[in-house]
Amino acid sequence: MTALSTEHLSALAQQSVELPSWAFGNSGTRFRVFATPGTPRDPFEKIADAAQVHAYTRLAPVVALHIPWDRVDSYDALRRHAEDLGVTLGTVNSNTFQDEDYKFGALAHHDARIRRKAIDHHLECIDIMDETGSRDLKIWLAEGSNYPGQNDMRDRQDRLQDSLQQIYARLGDEQRLVLEYKFFEPAFYHTDVPDWGTSYAQVSALGEKAMVCLDTGHHAPGTNIEFIVMQLLRLGKLGSFDFNSRFYADDDLIVGAADPFQLFRILAEVIRGGGLNNPEVAFMLDQCHNIEDKIPGQIRSVLNVQEMTARALLIDREALTAAQEANDVLAANAVVMDAFYTDVRPQLAAWREERGLAGDPMAAYLASGYQQRIAEERVGGVQAGWGA
Amino acid sequence: MTALSTEHLSALAQQSVELPSWAFGNSGTRFRVFATPGTPRDPFEKIADAAQVHAYTRLAPVVALHIPWDRVDSYDALRRHAEDLGVTLGTVNSNTFQDEDYKFGALAHHDARIRRKAIDHHLECIDIMDETGSRDLKIWLAEGSNYPGQNDMRDRQDRLQDSLQQIYARLGDEQRLVLEYKFFEPAFYHTDVPDWGTSYAQVSALGEKAMVCLDTGHHAPGTNIEFIVMQLLRLGKLGSFDFNSRFYADDDLIVGAADPFQLFRILAEVIRGGGLNNPEVAFMLDQCHNIEDKIPGQIRSVLNVQEMTARALLIDREALTAAQEANDVLAANAVVMDAFYTDVRPQLAAWREERGLAGDPMAAYLASGYQQRIAEERVGGVQAGWGA
Amino acid sequence: MTALSTEHLSALAQQSVELPSWAFGNSGTRFRVFATPGTPRDPFEKIADAAQVHAYTRLAPVVALHIPWDRVDSYDALRRHAEDLGVTLGTVNSNTFQDEDYKFGALAHHDARIRRKAIDHHLECIDIMDETGSRDLKIWLAEGSNYPGQNDMRDRQDRLQDSLQQIYARLGDEQRLVLEYKFFEPAFYHTDVPDWGTSYAQVSALGEKAMVCLDTGHHAPGTNIEFIVMQLLRLGKLGSFDFNSRFYADDDLIVGAADPFQLFRILAEVIRGGGLNNPEVAFMLDQCHNIEDKIPGQIRSVLNVQEMTARALLIDREALTAAQEANDVLAANAVVMDAFYTDVRPQLAAWREERGLAGDPMAAYLASGYQQRIAEERVGGVQAGWGA
Amino acid sequence: MTALSTEHLSALAQQSVELPSWAFGNSGTRFRVFATPGTPRDPFEKIADAAQVHAYTRLAPVVALHIPWDRVDSYDALRRHAEDLGVTLGTVNSNTFQDEDYKFGALAHHDARIRRKAIDHHLECIDIMDETGSRDLKIWLAEGSNYPGQNDMRDRQDRLQDSLQQIYARLGDEQRLVLEYKFFEPAFYHTDVPDWGTSYAQVSALGEKAMVCLDTGHHAPGTNIEFIVMQLLRLGKLGSFDFNSRFYADDDLIVGAADPFQLFRILAEVIRGGGLNNPEVAFMLDQCHNIEDKIPGQIRSVLNVQEMTARALLIDREALTAAQEANDVLAANAVVMDAFYTDVRPQLAAWREERGLAGDPMAAYLASGYQQRIAEERVGGVQAGWGA
Repeated sequence: MTALSTEHLSALAQQSVELPSWAFGNSGTRFRVFATPGTPRDPFEKIADAAQVHAYTRLAPVVALHIPWDRVDSYDALRRHAEDLGVTLGTVNSNTFQDEDYKFGALAHHDARIRRKAIDHHLECIDIMDETGSRDLKIWLAEGSNYPGQNDMRDRQDRLQDSLQQIYARLGDEQRLVLEYKFFEPAFYHTDVPDWGTSYAQVSALGEKAMVCLDTGHHAPGTNIEFIVMQLLRLGKLGSFDFNSRFYADDDLIVGAADPFQLFRILAEVIRGGGLNNPEVAFMLDQCHNIEDKIPGQIRSVLNVQEMTARALLIDREALTAAQEANDVLAANAVVMDAFYTDVRPQLAAWREERGLAGDPMAAYLASGYQQRIAEERVGGVQAGWGA
Repeated sequence: MTALSTEHLSALAQQSVELPSWAFGNSGTRFRVFATPGTPRDPFEKIADAAQVHAYTRLAPVVALHIPWDRVDSYDALRRHAEDLGVTLGTVNSNTFQDEDYKFGALAHHDARIRRKAIDHHLECIDIMDETGSRDLKIWLAEGSNYPGQNDMRDRQDRLQDSLQQIYARLGDEQRLVLEYKFFEPAFYHTDVPDWGTSYAQVSALGEKAMVCLDTGHHAPGTNIEFIVMQLLRLGKLGSFDFNSRFYADDDLIVGAADPFQLFRILAEVIRGGGLNNPEVAFMLDQCHNIEDKIPGQIRSVLNVQEMTARALLIDREALTAAQEANDVLAANAVVMDAFYTDVRPQLAAWREERGLAGDPMAAYLASGYQQRIAEERVGGVQAGWGA
Repeated sequence: MTALSTEHLSALAQQSVELPSWAFGNSGTRFRVFATPGTPRDPFEKIADAAQVHAYTRLAPVVALHIPWDRVDSYDALRRHAEDLGVTLGTVNSNTFQDEDYKFGALAHHDARIRRKAIDHHLECIDIMDETGSRDLKIWLAEGSNYPGQNDMRDRQDRLQDSLQQIYARLGDEQRLVLEYKFFEPAFYHTDVPDWGTSYAQVSALGEKAMVCLDTGHHAPGTNIEFIVMQLLRLGKLGSFDFNSRFYADDDLIVGAADPFQLFRILAEVIRGGGLNNPEVAFMLDQCHNIEDKIPGQIRSVLNVQEMTARALLIDREALTAAQEANDVLAANAVVMDAFYTDVRPQLAAWREERGLAGDPMAAYLASGYQQRIAEERVGGVQAGWGA
Repeated sequence: MTALSTEHLSALAQQSVELPSWAFGNSGTRFRVFATPGTPRDPFEKIADAAQVHAYTRLAPVVALHIPWDRVDSYDALRRHAEDLGVTLGTVNSNTFQDEDYKFGALAHHDARIRRKAIDHHLECIDIMDETGSRDLKIWLAEGSNYPGQNDMRDRQDRLQDSLQQIYARLGDEQRLVLEYKFFEPAFYHTDVPDWGTSYAQVSALGEKAMVCLDTGHHAPGTNIEFIVMQLLRLGKLGSFDFNSRFYADDDLIVGAADPFQLFRILAEVIRGGGLNNPEVAFMLDQCHNIEDKIPGQIRSVLNVQEMTARALLIDREALTAAQEANDVLAANAVVMDAFYTDVRPQLAAWREERGLAGDPMAAYLASGYQQRIAEERVGGVQAGWGA
């Protein structure tokens, strides 16, 4: 049986996954947002919960914020709170889909006043980044239209570029803008940045500090996502991942839950293309725990990323190349499948214990009593959610 | 140019589309529900708005209710209110997806207490039907699971049948149960009634008063929906339509907006299979007007159904059969396309005027001042929505 | 680490997968059929190759035939040839998609002469079954239409039922008819049996000896196939599987190659529903090895089925039920994932050796020299293919 | 009723659609290629048939060639033959998917010898272009892999760029290279140029004479194709269309047959973006007439393009912009739908007659006796096809 080498474990020790603060709040579908006992009431409690994930896994030292959901009086206080708990503040996500003014668009809106407002919101986000020490401004463009003719798609594309340029100009030297694409939802006819090609064209026109964000749930059925990973790494424009999984649309399920083999293939291309532990490529989660407990849901998620990375590291690249060059389809595929089917969990558990962690982080968390404590203590107030 | 015959117009004169009361309330996505001025605050105002659609089109004499969204103190009062406005109350839709108890299921839940509660909710709906004079109880089963293993799908199927039998037993002689199927959402891994086959198997086991409801937005990409229409009519189990349209998932857009040719093909199979103006087959809308005005959205919808029915009626069945029997693919297709491409709108406008209606119902409604009036008058209170 | 119990191994020892004779011939896409050295020239050579798969795996004792591709002068001779090589002849597959007469249909054609010809072909297939001792007649209905209007779908459905009844009437007491459904291809607009619901309705109208065949590649994107497995087992109508895998359409790749987790879930439902080692449910492969070697491709396939069955057997049903009843989504999912992630291969290899087989059947086959031998010996003649 | 203006008709008079020579040969699926009486036996006969389409429609003055299917001794003779019949020779399509050497790739193959061979094939195609006077070399890259691991996708991408550069260097000043992308088929796991983004990145790295070819059938389900049209026009990289239609995969049906409203939306974006009658944007058909007559199939296709262009021209741009700027979703959509629903056929028929053409080109062709003549005369020889 193949085992992880020292080199592999060293790579795994460096791995870092950024958690989304909103994963700890309530979420749901258009039909219902169900509540969960112990849900945080404010960004400080979200950070506290995120810190639990890191405490048990040593995989999640960074927490991404979402503005305005995580607006606080003092970002410095939030930053110190995070650091006290052993984590730091990461990517700042903007939001241009919940203000009544944005009903028909924001950065691409035909009305200059509304574009100005949306641009200003992003400038505020960069102000916050300056305070939190965040590097990345992530823009998910929830804009589009529901009916053919509703908007002029071409004009919107040009206005979008113009708005992005104004935001880009405000970035500090060490800051970046990452532009997320999404196939559909909340708009149903057209989305202004529906695919990697559009995001690539838009960020390429901005400059070197603008990159593409790949959310694994934002593609048409049947899309070969690892191909896009390969291509964006090749083009030097893969800025970050939003990991999650899906059976149908943007289900935002736990990464690796729906198609673990796909996650494995994605991570194999990340490694192949030099994206692993590469500071240029941020690994983030973007998930919703609609019905399952949130902290355990995040623990499961980062472990899935770690375990699949471990499997992908096991691919025998030499044997693979030899089989490929011999046109031996079955042998080449077998090299890949052998790595995927290898059960790395026992070795990872032992390795965790060597590092002073619990071998089974999930069991350790559940035994810690934290979940019961927050369920009991967090009474009163308004549970955090998307404010939809 | 082919024109609609007297017989065609007579068929169109009988056509009736049932409006969903919830289309007049606010709706949105999981990201945001945008408000619209003039949105009804209660079921009485919803009925008033629905009556406007009928007044201008003479196509929509029935309004479907959704319980609990349309719960009122006196259904008799609601019924008289409707009748005063020229419409009647139709299908009663149950709701087992918004109570905290239903987080993990309702009619198929493993917990007998929750199943009992869900069954009782349906019995209450039948009580309401007795008061409103409604014939159909529509059950959209929003149940399922998000992760493999979360539930035992087989047990759920058996419990579902058991619950349905208890509901079925309470139906009056002239009442029916229609079971809607849906591919995915709000559950992301499995849905308890995901396809027509499952709905067909479930209702066939109940008896003659149980039928299938086909929502045009609830299928996998690429599904030939008119084939299912044909098959359910052939099997005698097509109880009702939920009309809407979609580009991607269950977008609930205006019927005919995304793929008018598909709507045409569906209506052609309805006519072919004897489903037009057949009391066994209810034509309903199930739509969301997230960003457009609601009353005009419904007017547009019923007109789309009427216009496409008119086009489908124009198919020259004799020429079609002749071409089919000659294996003349292009000629047969041309007969169908000729009907689809014929612009029936001028003739329909003239016919409307003959019947004392405005030739252009949309323009007439917009000119009536109703929209401005409700925007001004309906101030205060809480706008109706899904209560999600 | 969980290990396979004696009971599990006993179940695995009984497992039997039926190989398709055509997998050993050449196949390809509409763009090209590439040749492979050593490809059989006749049914006898196909059987010889299939027997190799069984010799190394003890998993594939039965070979399915396809008529006319496997037409021989003496089926008795073919039967004895098979038995000499340690295998038997299985399901007979009919073919109504390659004769010029079938350009516009066969069993559902509007022309009675062509229907008669297609029915007679099936009667001939049953004659062959009598000689080969086969139980199942498998009908894949490649019929449909490419353009709306080309055919009357309803009439075709009725004629199909009539034709099937005539075929059904000829079945012996121990024989069965299994009806395969397929979403699309070779017809592009409509397929006469596009989904499990249609196959179920058609075979239910025939009688107890008619069952549904589920080909894992014949569904719309996003379809939850294990749900259909569950439902057909529940309804007592799952007659057989055609295993293969796909990324997009009916790719006919090696089973388990595209989405191993899906194969696992399917087999978990088979076990849950009593379909494992149940004579009512035939496990067949239906694959194309367009670019890879065929015998190794089949070895890989049956091993994939075995390994995934083993993983599915490892699901801790007691723990699963407990988690389900506690509504513990993550724990329930973890039980399932734990089984999936367990590497059963070492134990299976050891078990194989106990049974006198090579621990690594693929390596043993490749080392045997058979592949080189057939490549050298099978010179001249016409390589078998689909005759397309 | 809106009517086409003089300006509209003038635009339509300039419209030119390029026909694919291979549409006149036999084609089919992997299951069967059915023959049709009268099918050409050589490129000269194909050109003759294509000329018929132009004679009756004045829409199709150019015929695209496919090498090697259209290899002839004298391209000059073929050119004169075409000109004698009133048409010219257009785009040259290369073929790197049918030689046994290309089983595992061509321009992206790891073997330098095979890449050289594939590059040389393209250089030969450019030689032919020099003789035929063709401007465009179209490369559809049928390369990819069927199984994860079979190939290194990244290396292939780099080798592809290198090969394309060598071909690009050979182009004359007035010649272009257009690179077609395709989602899947004949490769099932990965395609080397699967999406517009990859084609765009590849051709952008080549230079100004390299453009993207958009085949309307080569996208994932649910893709908004008109968005891509808009984007490529915006980026100045839309080189050509391959028109056809599809219900599911790359069905290659008659353009406009499956979703006429989609064709309309595509053409509306073409007009909006300046792509109509723009020499930079070639309109080609790429279709298969598997079961219908080929010449009438092509006549139907070019008429569909013309009729939809006419409808798209009718969009009242002023009213549309006004509605868009007022955020009047329904009014904006109504402007678009009004154009789509307008029956332009009578006016186009009258206009054709003014220009000395038959009002109904299909009827005129069918009455001409050409189809019967070729069916009778073209006896013996081998019907042209794909040589698959």
